[in-house]
Amino acid sequence: MREPKCWLCLVVTGLVPVVVSVKSTLATPRRYTADWVSLDTRPLPSWFDEAKFGVFVHWGVFSVPAWGSEWFWWHWKGQPQAGYEQFMRRYYPPGFSYADFGPQFTARFFRPEQWADLFEASGAKYVVLTTKHHEGFTNWPSPTSWNWNSKDVGPHRDLVGELGAALRERNIRYGLYHSLMEWFHPLYIIDKKNSLKTQHFVNTKTMPELYHLVNSYRPDLIWSDGDWECPDTYWNSTSFLAWLYNDSPIKDEVVVNDRWGQGCSCNHGGYFNCQDKYKPEKLPDHKWEMCTSIDRKSWGYRCDMLLSDILPAFEIIKELVKTVSLGGNYLLNIGPTRDGLIDPIFQERLLTIGKWLNVSGEAIYSTRPWRVQMEKDKRTVWYTSKGTTVYAIFMHWPEHGILKIKSPKTTESTKIMMLGMHGNLKWSKDSKDSLLITLPSLPPSGLPVKFAWTVKMTNVK
Amino acid sequence: MREPKCWLCLVVTGLVPVVVSVKSTLATPRRYTADWVSLDTRPLPSWFDEAKFGVFVHWGVFSVPAWGSEWFWWHWKGQPQAGYEQFMRRYYPPGFSYADFGPQFTARFFRPEQWADLFEASGAKYVVLTTKHHEGFTNWPSPTSWNWNSKDVGPHRDLVGELGAALRERNIRYGLYHSLMEWFHPLYIIDKKNSLKTQHFVNTKTMPELYHLVNSYRPDLIWSDGDWECPDTYWNSTSFLAWLYNDSPIKDEVVVNDRWGQGCSCNHGGYFNCQDKYKPEKLPDHKWEMCTSIDRKSWGYRCDMLLSDILPAFEIIKELVKTVSLGGNYLLNIGPTRDGLIDPIFQERLLTIGKWLNVSGEAIYSTRPWRVQMEKDKRTVWYTSKGTTVYAIFMHWPEHGILKIKSPKTTESTKIMMLGMHGNLKWSKDSKDSLLITLPSLPPSGLPVKFAWTVKMTNVK
Amino acid sequence: MREPKCWLCLVVTGLVPVVVSVKSTLATPRRYTADWVSLDTRPLPSWFDEAKFGVFVHWGVFSVPAWGSEWFWWHWKGQPQAGYEQFMRRYYPPGFSYADFGPQFTARFFRPEQWADLFEASGAKYVVLTTKHHEGFTNWPSPTSWNWNSKDVGPHRDLVGELGAALRERNIRYGLYHSLMEWFHPLYIIDKKNSLKTQHFVNTKTMPELYHLVNSYRPDLIWSDGDWECPDTYWNSTSFLAWLYNDSPIKDEVVVNDRWGQGCSCNHGGYFNCQDKYKPEKLPDHKWEMCTSIDRKSWGYRCDMLLSDILPAFEIIKELVKTVSLGGNYLLNIGPTRDGLIDPIFQERLLTIGKWLNVSGEAIYSTRPWRVQMEKDKRTVWYTSKGTTVYAIFMHWPEHGILKIKSPKTTESTKIMMLGMHGNLKWSKDSKDSLLITLPSLPPSGLPVKFAWTVKMTNVK
Amino acid sequence: MREPKCWLCLVVTGLVPVVVSVKSTLATPRRYTADWVSLDTRPLPSWFDEAKFGVFVHWGVFSVPAWGSEWFWWHWKGQPQAGYEQFMRRYYPPGFSYADFGPQFTARFFRPEQWADLFEASGAKYVVLTTKHHEGFTNWPSPTSWNWNSKDVGPHRDLVGELGAALRERNIRYGLYHSLMEWFHPLYIIDKKNSLKTQHFVNTKTMPELYHLVNSYRPDLIWSDGDWECPDTYWNSTSFLAWLYNDSPIKDEVVVNDRWGQGCSCNHGGYFNCQDKYKPEKLPDHKWEMCTSIDRKSWGYRCDMLLSDILPAFEIIKELVKTVSLGGNYLLNIGPTRDGLIDPIFQERLLTIGKWLNVSGEAIYSTRPWRVQMEKDKRTVWYTSKGTTVYAIFMHWPEHGILKIKSPKTTESTKIMMLGMHGNLKWSKDSKDSLLITLPSLPPSGLPVKFAWTVKMTNVK
Repeated sequence: MREPKCWLCLVVTGLVPVVVSVKSTLATPRRYTADWVSLDTRPLPSWFDEAKFGVFVHWGVFSVPAWGSEWFWWHWKGQPQAGYEQFMRRYYPPGFSYADFGPQFTARFFRPEQWADLFEASGAKYVVLTTKHHEGFTNWPSPTSWNWNSKDVGPHRDLVGELGAALRERNIRYGLYHSLMEWFHPLYIIDKKNSLKTQHFVNTKTMPELYHLVNSYRPDLIWSDGDWECPDTYWNSTSFLAWLYNDSPIKDEVVVNDRWGQGCSCNHGGYFNCQDKYKPEKLPDHKWEMCTSIDRKSWGYRCDMLLSDILPAFEIIKELVKTVSLGGNYLLNIGPTRDGLIDPIFQERLLTIGKWLNVSGEAIYSTRPWRVQMEKDKRTVWYTSKGTTVYAIFMHWPEHGILKIKSPKTTESTKIMMLGMHGNLKWSKDSKDSLLITLPSLPPSGLPVKFAWTVKMTNVK
Repeated sequence: MREPKCWLCLVVTGLVPVVVSVKSTLATPRRYTADWVSLDTRPLPSWFDEAKFGVFVHWGVFSVPAWGSEWFWWHWKGQPQAGYEQFMRRYYPPGFSYADFGPQFTARFFRPEQWADLFEASGAKYVVLTTKHHEGFTNWPSPTSWNWNSKDVGPHRDLVGELGAALRERNIRYGLYHSLMEWFHPLYIIDKKNSLKTQHFVNTKTMPELYHLVNSYRPDLIWSDGDWECPDTYWNSTSFLAWLYNDSPIKDEVVVNDRWGQGCSCNHGGYFNCQDKYKPEKLPDHKWEMCTSIDRKSWGYRCDMLLSDILPAFEIIKELVKTVSLGGNYLLNIGPTRDGLIDPIFQERLLTIGKWLNVSGEAIYSTRPWRVQMEKDKRTVWYTSKGTTVYAIFMHWPEHGILKIKSPKTTESTKIMMLGMHGNLKWSKDSKDSLLITLPSLPPSGLPVKFAWTVKMTNVK
Repeated sequence: MREPKCWLCLVVTGLVPVVVSVKSTLATPRRYTADWVSLDTRPLPSWFDEAKFGVFVHWGVFSVPAWGSEWFWWHWKGQPQAGYEQFMRRYYPPGFSYADFGPQFTARFFRPEQWADLFEASGAKYVVLTTKHHEGFTNWPSPTSWNWNSKDVGPHRDLVGELGAALRERNIRYGLYHSLMEWFHPLYIIDKKNSLKTQHFVNTKTMPELYHLVNSYRPDLIWSDGDWECPDTYWNSTSFLAWLYNDSPIKDEVVVNDRWGQGCSCNHGGYFNCQDKYKPEKLPDHKWEMCTSIDRKSWGYRCDMLLSDILPAFEIIKELVKTVSLGGNYLLNIGPTRDGLIDPIFQERLLTIGKWLNVSGEAIYSTRPWRVQMEKDKRTVWYTSKGTTVYAIFMHWPEHGILKIKSPKTTESTKIMMLGMHGNLKWSKDSKDSLLITLPSLPPSGLPVKFAWTVKMTNVK
Repeated sequence: MREPKCWLCLVVTGLVPVVVSVKSTLATPRRYTADWVSLDTRPLPSWFDEAKFGVFVHWGVFSVPAWGSEWFWWHWKGQPQAGYEQFMRRYYPPGFSYADFGPQFTARFFRPEQWADLFEASGAKYVVLTTKHHEGFTNWPSPTSWNWNSKDVGPHRDLVGELGAALRERNIRYGLYHSLMEWFHPLYIIDKKNSLKTQHFVNTKTMPELYHLVNSYRPDLIWSDGDWECPDTYWNSTSFLAWLYNDSPIKDEVVVNDRWGQGCSCNHGGYFNCQDKYKPEKLPDHKWEMCTSIDRKSWGYRCDMLLSDILPAFEIIKELVKTVSLGGNYLLNIGPTRDGLIDPIFQERLLTIGKWLNVSGEAIYSTRPWRVQMEKDKRTVWYTSKGTTVYAIFMHWPEHGILKIKSPKTTESTKIMMLGMHGNLKWSKDSKDSLLITLPSLPPSGLPVKFAWTVKMTNVK
């Protein structure tokens, strides 16, 4: 099997369509062809479903104005909104351009070790970093994004590489967010004017960069985005994925999402993101991930966050539990500052999740959806499972300390305990065959977690 | 009574020692002479003791580097520390001076109404703002601090005036922090070289400004600082206080602290601060105030705060309770950013206190220390009182839900209830005459507060 | 009709609807093939030789540090010189990059009308502007130099277009300087690492830009540079020139120089520049141009120019005269400031030339070298000619007011006069057949020029 | 011995240990009282009249916008002009203040040695630097201008001190320009509101600074300005001058001008400036100085100077000659850039004067006005004298090389020569007793100067 030796060859590929690889016909791993019928048959590497919880990081030049959202440029210059125009008029000299923000993206306090420690303490098993958002600025030294990347301008560092190294030391999986589209790239605009009959942008910018990312950083996950304006035939997505699955250095472990061209999302690719903050109400039949942001109003950092914009820890844990129960992964976003710092409120939320997972992680990591996802009672109870062990996670402590649930069928060998506490709990059945579990009567301050307690039941059906 | 008509006249006073006022001999309010024997006899206006809880705000040019602490300039240039020198070398061009930070103190997002809403929601009854820290930069347009004040440089706004107006609309008392000393003022340095035989600095800078503050903003509280290098005779403190108590427009309501010259602190003035973060272990015999900061490491904003540097809500409430029980006021500090924003972690702490005071404020505001401050049991219980009503605040929920306290002597008409809940609680006495109170057996999520619960006992001794 | 094959042409097509003109088959103009044998046969359009005097303008991001020379970046980071490193250490914060200079290239006072007025008053018949120097920053909105061009960063204007429009209104020919090479372009560096076996840089950056320039601005002259590291086969120069001469919209009038690849200079292309500041000592057999700079030490603006670095007007005129006498054109450089202003010392030099040409231009513009270039006497006299009219330009006023020259052969109808003065001069022959011309005996202040006076002789051989 | 009464003297004492000298009672020098009758009797130290030519330097924060004139602040904010407001709106963010320019006044290339070399080469015998213009920014570390001086902000250097040291090494006299008034100083504004009945500004700012300047830098000349809004009784000018003349360390050599209060100019003080660019048409009876600026439109640097704004060398020399002939000194201004550089056009003008003075200085330095100032002929001739030697300076070379002048009465021993040339000239008398001098018949390039030639006549009346 021939392997492209460097990203560079792929630029050539990008420029001149070339048959990348002649397959050997000997017993070899299965190979995929560059179409969805074939690509969609690839099994998802198992680590992803086991991980359950990841941290998403939106960081870029948009972290400099740090106002509105990471779509700052678009709301200012693409489809102008009065608020953004006013913001610029009020605080910047006339003629200031978005590119002028670049040198102010200093990342000067960015300590990847510190970030990685925090993410590890949050219980996240993978971290996804924006390597390039729709603004086109690359957080690594891309040779096809000269003077609009983090090595030439602003941080003068390889942000993608540095964070990756710190995560790998802690065995945290590393995902790379990559936007196919760049709002204002002149070649992209030319291609659109040409009704996508030309692919100048794809061939000389966005695809070379995606190949370069894979070869340089060997990510465990590629979180594609920015696909919606053009079909996958414009993006050359299937060629990329065929190479990724067949010949790339990460072909065995890499996971991708579903944003690879108009109509792909929720239909093709690896796992499904569907929309942002997607919340299915019943168990989907395809592995999925819910991505959401601690700051309700933005994925990128906003310097003027109000506490009311911030997801409370309780809601975060509720969503995590619901997502996992419904078979999804939960990818929770924070936006670091332009200096490379993570606001203490984000630290607190992440560490609170970490504390909760320290006790309750057994009911989350590596679990599978159970036959029932949710107890339809007054107060919600969510289930997860590992074989015949079933976890019931309840958000509100029941009055009188008796948890009543209907779905589990106990057996003779069934034992019930509470995560974080020693000893078995007493349980019984009521007249309608509901299971009644007597919770411990400890004082409030004695409980290991403040909400979302978990009852573990062994040998149930 | 003659009143100086403008700050200006006081400059003259400052320059040429002048007898300010000829007293009328008719029945008039008592007058104070410019010495501690007289000044210390002034009763403290009652609002201060009733207020109990205030918010302290450190804001100035030090909020620009936002690193280390608000003593940045001193640690960089006064008694240089390697870390500060390295910080400057690493991030600023050679020759950059502290004054060069001035234009970057933009306060551009400062909305005093928003701050005041937050402070009101925190339950604070007074707010103290740094009008001028040791750096000498004035947060109001001082005529004797030309081009080193918030109107000429940076914000281009009267920060002191704007915040005051917003607070007054909400009936929050307004205190002004003022540093007598300025580390690097050339006239102060000259005075010190002259062994304080000259008072150039006092006469043309620091005292004119203090008079100007009083006449311009009519504060309820003057929080003096920066006194320690010189005796009050250098500062002319007693003259100022005599004017303040006798003739100033705020003579009836104004409260001051105790930092008016070497040896004054904890001895003379209004209420006592003694040291920063002062914590007496038993009831002092003079009204006092504990000031402390949510960020353990700084009073001014630091952009690189770690969550571990931040006081947890639980500790804040514990200190507030202890302080009030021991007769003190609790002044809790936050540092806004150079842009005029308050970090969400500070918002969360302040709002958490506000929620706690919504339920428990009855045991705090306008209370008096009881005859016993603290129950010396395994688990601490603190007392406050209003007449024969006594409040016992306990930090940890007792096992088995029985609170046992020794000090209160019940009477026949004693009733006991829990703040935030309806109905009376059952109680009894044990063999050693301890009071046993049966707490409600609600589930953890049913309690109105998560810690520091209050039992209210009427008609006890 | 041959279509340019490369990708870029399509970009160009995308941007500017260009009718690439289907030739009528009648009377087809001659076509050139993409090799030097063919290309070198193209006659030079006549305007260039007639123009004689042009102004060169070096303007770019190097105008921001405005120190050392326009090679600032290279001397700082390419082959570092201590002085440049020290300059950056002393005046900029650590980590400041060359790209960070971009936003400071404001061009805020750039008024192309004002420049064009000045150039016109200098007597220049053409102006050559750096559209892109070795730093790679383009002074026009190049679609393949996103965020490293004058529209996205810094000026936020199309400098190339604006100056061109102003020059055309004044009928001044417009030349575009273009560097093939870019010191630090990552694709160029990759191509060099690949021993020039790849042409990523040529195909996606430098050639698309050159075509884009031609199609967008239709220059009269392309002043190529930066060719020396690679052969023309790498640059695809001959293909470009074939397209330029055969099919481009400017094929009839465009002039190019000789810097198109290793070994081309002084051998192939249009007119010859040979080296910078090239000064042949005898008449070359190929049209040539001498380029030089008023600031002896730099082509780009230096803020710390000393007067001793500036060419005196007298020397400039001497060089102009010598150059024209030897068949060359004289291209004199100035470097505007980053704000778009032209230093008064440059204004003065240019206007002094203009004043001189007002009187003496007849001996310069549209002249041809004479059979003798220079009188080898004690004091230099230079000749130019138009048919049988010969101009003798002498730099120093001879003692006793008698100009003695040997080469011209007078005839009966010969008349001699002095440019700028009325009336014929007396002349005679001495014993050795030298021509003795009696100059006017006006007072010094009566002469129309202060140096480089011209005697015009009609009907001489 | 009288001690200065004001506060500032004490500041001075604090800073510089100055022996204010107890006079011996023997042979006491005359003392002046603090009134014009006495002060005006002081003889002008002789060095000033002998010096004739000085260089004026306007440098300050106004050099940062470098636009309009050094009155930038006033035209922007005092009596706003549309152009200045537009300039700020166009190029700076909203809210930018004049004080924000401070940090950009870097003086980073300021080399006082280089300046002094240039001034020496220009032939200047004294140099006057703006120590503080109406903007109030002090170019030295004034203790009463904290954070609005060149040590704290911007240059971080003592500009006044550094230039002084370099000048003294070259025996160039040093003058300090000082503005009494500061447009926007809050204390000055208060004094004006108080109808000048208070002197807060005088007592704590402007006079302390003037004393401080004298004691710190011991100038040879004090060039007072900014007096016109208030009478000398407000400024305390006569007290200052009495101290300066009687007791200051520079009492013997110091020279002052005439701007010390409303109505003083052209009436009281030392020499007279009267208005800026004052040009008397006949010989005044009091020593005077004409100050003017090479840039006709501004005294401070303007980055957008056009050559037409610049005085030609010829006009400068004409004015110098005329001024000296009429008994004045000529003080010619340049404005350095904010970086501390002197534009090459200013270098050229200064060096051209220097070259002229190298030849003609004998007719300028230490001369006295002659009994006739000017020959009222077609072409102007100006006279200066030293005893019975008379210099006639003529601007235009007479036709036929015969200079005809009427005023000088020759004697038998009269000899006539031309400065810069060897040998005596022939002369005769015409019928109307005019003197006819035959000038040398050298070629134009042979003359040592290009204009303003000097004929020296000994033993004339």
